[in-house]
Amino acid sequence: MKYQFSQKIDSLQPSAIREILKATADPSVISFAAGNPAPEAFPVETVQKIAAEILQENPVLALQYSVTEGYTPLRDRLAVHVKERYGIGQDFDQVLVVSGAQQGICLTAHCLVDDGDTIICESPSFIGSLNAFRSFRSQLVGVEMDDDGINIEKLEAALKANPRTKFIYTIPNFQNPTGITMSLEKRREVYRLALQYGVMILEDNPYGELRIKGEPVPTIKSLDTEGIVIYCGSFSKVLSPGLRVGYVVAPREIVAKLTVAKQCADVHTTILSQLICDKFLAEYDFDAHIKGLQDIYRKKANLMIGEIDKKFNPAVSHTDPEGGLFLWCTLPEGADMMAFCQAAVENHVAVVPGTAFLTDESEPTRSVRLNYSTPTDEQIVKGIDILGGLTYKLF
Amino acid sequence: MKYQFSQKIDSLQPSAIREILKATADPSVISFAAGNPAPEAFPVETVQKIAAEILQENPVLALQYSVTEGYTPLRDRLAVHVKERYGIGQDFDQVLVVSGAQQGICLTAHCLVDDGDTIICESPSFIGSLNAFRSFRSQLVGVEMDDDGINIEKLEAALKANPRTKFIYTIPNFQNPTGITMSLEKRREVYRLALQYGVMILEDNPYGELRIKGEPVPTIKSLDTEGIVIYCGSFSKVLSPGLRVGYVVAPREIVAKLTVAKQCADVHTTILSQLICDKFLAEYDFDAHIKGLQDIYRKKANLMIGEIDKKFNPAVSHTDPEGGLFLWCTLPEGADMMAFCQAAVENHVAVVPGTAFLTDESEPTRSVRLNYSTPTDEQIVKGIDILGGLTYKLF
Repeated sequence: MKYQFSQKIDSLQPSAIREILKATADPSVISFAAGNPAPEAFPVETVQKIAAEILQENPVLALQYSVTEGYTPLRDRLAVHVKERYGIGQDFDQVLVVSGAQQGICLTAHCLVDDGDTIICESPSFIGSLNAFRSFRSQLVGVEMDDDGINIEKLEAALKANPRTKFIYTIPNFQNPTGITMSLEKRREVYRLALQYGVMILEDNPYGELRIKGEPVPTIKSLDTEGIVIYCGSFSKVLSPGLRVGYVVAPREIVAKLTVAKQCADVHTTILSQLICDKFLAEYDFDAHIKGLQDIYRKKANLMIGEIDKKFNPAVSHTDPEGGLFLWCTLPEGADMMAFCQAAVENHVAVVPGTAFLTDESEPTRSVRLNYSTPTDEQIVKGIDILGGLTYKLF
Repeated sequence: MKYQFSQKIDSLQPSAIREILKATADPSVISFAAGNPAPEAFPVETVQKIAAEILQENPVLALQYSVTEGYTPLRDRLAVHVKERYGIGQDFDQVLVVSGAQQGICLTAHCLVDDGDTIICESPSFIGSLNAFRSFRSQLVGVEMDDDGINIEKLEAALKANPRTKFIYTIPNFQNPTGITMSLEKRREVYRLALQYGVMILEDNPYGELRIKGEPVPTIKSLDTEGIVIYCGSFSKVLSPGLRVGYVVAPREIVAKLTVAKQCADVHTTILSQLICDKFLAEYDFDAHIKGLQDIYRKKANLMIGEIDKKFNPAVSHTDPEGGLFLWCTLPEGADMMAFCQAAVENHVAVVPGTAFLTDESEPTRSVRLNYSTPTDEQIVKGIDILGGLTYKLF
C-alpha cells in the first residue's frame, strides 16, 4: 500500500533534536543535546506526598473525565500567579490549561493559520514550535537576533513584506536555542509594531523563572492593553515536564476557540497532573523552590562557560545567558559546522547543529546549541574538554 | 480587536455535549447526557498503590521528558495485549501511545486529510471525532446504520460518489451514540470495499471490553493483511479517562507520520499516566477487572432498559446494546425531538439531542442518546420515570 499523507504533514521530518536524543540513548555518549531539567531539580518527595494525598482524598476526581478548559481551581490560581509574578492579565483575559506549552503553541497555529499565512519567528528559534507551525502549512519568515533580542528594523521589514502575517512568535527570556533575553525597549517595540501592523504576538515563556543573573524584564503580555498577546507558560521547567501541564493566557474570545480545538485534540489535560500542579502552587513555597532551581542552573551554567573559556579555541564565541538551559556557540568564519557536530558524536559528545533551529533549514549557520541543565558536572567538564580539543584540531 | 480565526476552526462550535455537561453541573439535574465511566468502576486502591510505587521506585523517570512514541515497555506490552485479545498486529504494524484515543483520531486526520478530502462516517457518530475531522476542513459524508452496523450498499455508493475519500471512520463495537455492534459479515464487507476503493479504515474501539452479552466479534484490524487499518484503543473506559492514555496500532509508515504530528501536538503523553497503565497491565488481573466492569454496566443497562420498557410510551423505540455505555431512543413519527430534550431539561433530566451526532447537523432526526454508566441506580429509576411521563404527555 502506498500511503498518501496530507500536504500539511508530508513535508515534515522528525525533529533533528529528538533523533539525536535517541542516538544518545547510548550511555557512553555525553549529551549536551537535550533540553531536560536537571534530575536533581525535581521536588521528588513533595510530588510523592501530593500525589498520595490527591489519590487518597479525591480519587474519582483524579481518574474521571474533566472539563476541557482545565481544573477550575488551578485556572483561578494561575490567574493570580501570573498577575503577581508577571503583571499579566487584563479583564478580557482568561486562562486555559494545556498539555504542555507545546500544545498551546500548536493550538494557536491551528486556530489562527490558514494555508500560506505567515508567522514571523526569531531565527534561530525553538524547533518544536517551528514544526508545529509548518504542520499547518504556514509560511515561516525568520528575523535575525541581536544580542538584546530580535532585530527591530528587520522585523518591521518582514511585517511590511508579508501582509498575510498572523502573528509574531517570540521567546523573550533566555531564548531557545540562543539563550538571548530581549530588552524591555525591544519588547515595547515588538508590541508597538504588532499593533501597528494588526498582527498578534505569541509569547512563549517556558524558562522565565530560571533566571541566574541580572534583573527580570517585564513580559510583553504585561504591556498588552489591547488584547493582542497570547501568552504560554509551563510547569515543565519549574516542576516536571513529564506531567505535561502548561497554560495559555489570552483574550476570552481566543481562549474559546483554543478550547474548541483542544476538545478535538485531547479532550482535556491529564487531571491527575493538573491536581499535582494545583496542590504544588497552593501548599508549597514556590519562591523557595524557584530559588533552589536557579542555584542549580547558575552553578551548571557557570561551570560550562568556565570550562569553555578555558578549553575552547578562542575563535569560537558563545552567548552569555542570564538564565534558561542553553548556550549558543558560534564557530569561526569558514568552519564546517556539520563536520564539527559529526566529529563530536564520533568522540561521544552530542550537540545540536544550529540548522535545526532555522526557519529555513537550508540557510548556512556556523552555530551549535549546548545544553547545561541535563549533564552532570563531571560530564560537563569531560565533554567540554573533548569539544575543546576538536575546536583546536578542526579550526 | 477583531480576531481573524482560521477557516479550519472558525466554523466549529463547542461540542453540544460538553455544553450540556456544563449545564448539568447543577446537582439537581439527573444527567443521562454524559459518557463517563461509573465512579465505582475505578480501581482506586490499585491506582493508589501503583502510583506510590512508581514515584518511590522511579521518580525521575515519572517526572522527566520522555519519548514521543510512548514508554517502550508499555508499547511492547500493548502489542502483546492487542494480539492476544483481538488478534491485532501484523509484522508491519507498530504501537503509538497517544493522549487518549481522541488524540489518535485527531492525529490521523492531521496526517491524512487535505482541505476538501472526504471522510466517510457512520451517521450518527461520535461528535468528538466528527469535530476533529471538521477541524481539518474535511468533507464528512454520513452513511446510515442498520441494526447490524453501517449499510453496505450505501457505503459503496458513498465510496463511488466521493473519489477523494481518505478513510472510513467506524466504531464497530457498541457504537457511540447508537450502541449498535457491527456484524462480522459487515466488517469483512467494509474491509473489502476499503481495499477495492483504495481508502483506509480508522477503527475506533474504546468500548470493546465492555461487552455485557453476546459473543465477541473480531476487530476489523484483525482482518488487516494489507495494512489499511488504523486502530485506536484506550484506557479511558477500562482504567481511567482522566489519565488520558490511548494507543494506535497501524503500519509503521503511518505511525512514523503520526509521531511527527504528535511531537508538534504535545511532545509526549503524560509519562506518569503511561507508567500507571503499564504497571496495571503488568501486575494486575486484567481479565478479573474487566469482568467486574462488565457486571457493573450489565446491571445498569438492564436497569435502564427495564425501566424504559415499563415507563415509556411504547411508540418510543430503543436499541438493545450488547455493551458500551449508551442507548439510542427514537421518538414516534412526527415527534419534536428538540422539544422533548428541552422539556426533559426543564424537568431536571438531561439527554443529548440526536442532531449532535449527525455528519450534517441540519438533517432531521427523532433520536436522542441516553447514557447509563454515569447515573446512580436511583437516578436511573427516577430519571426514566420523568422521561416516561413526558413520552405520554408529548406524544
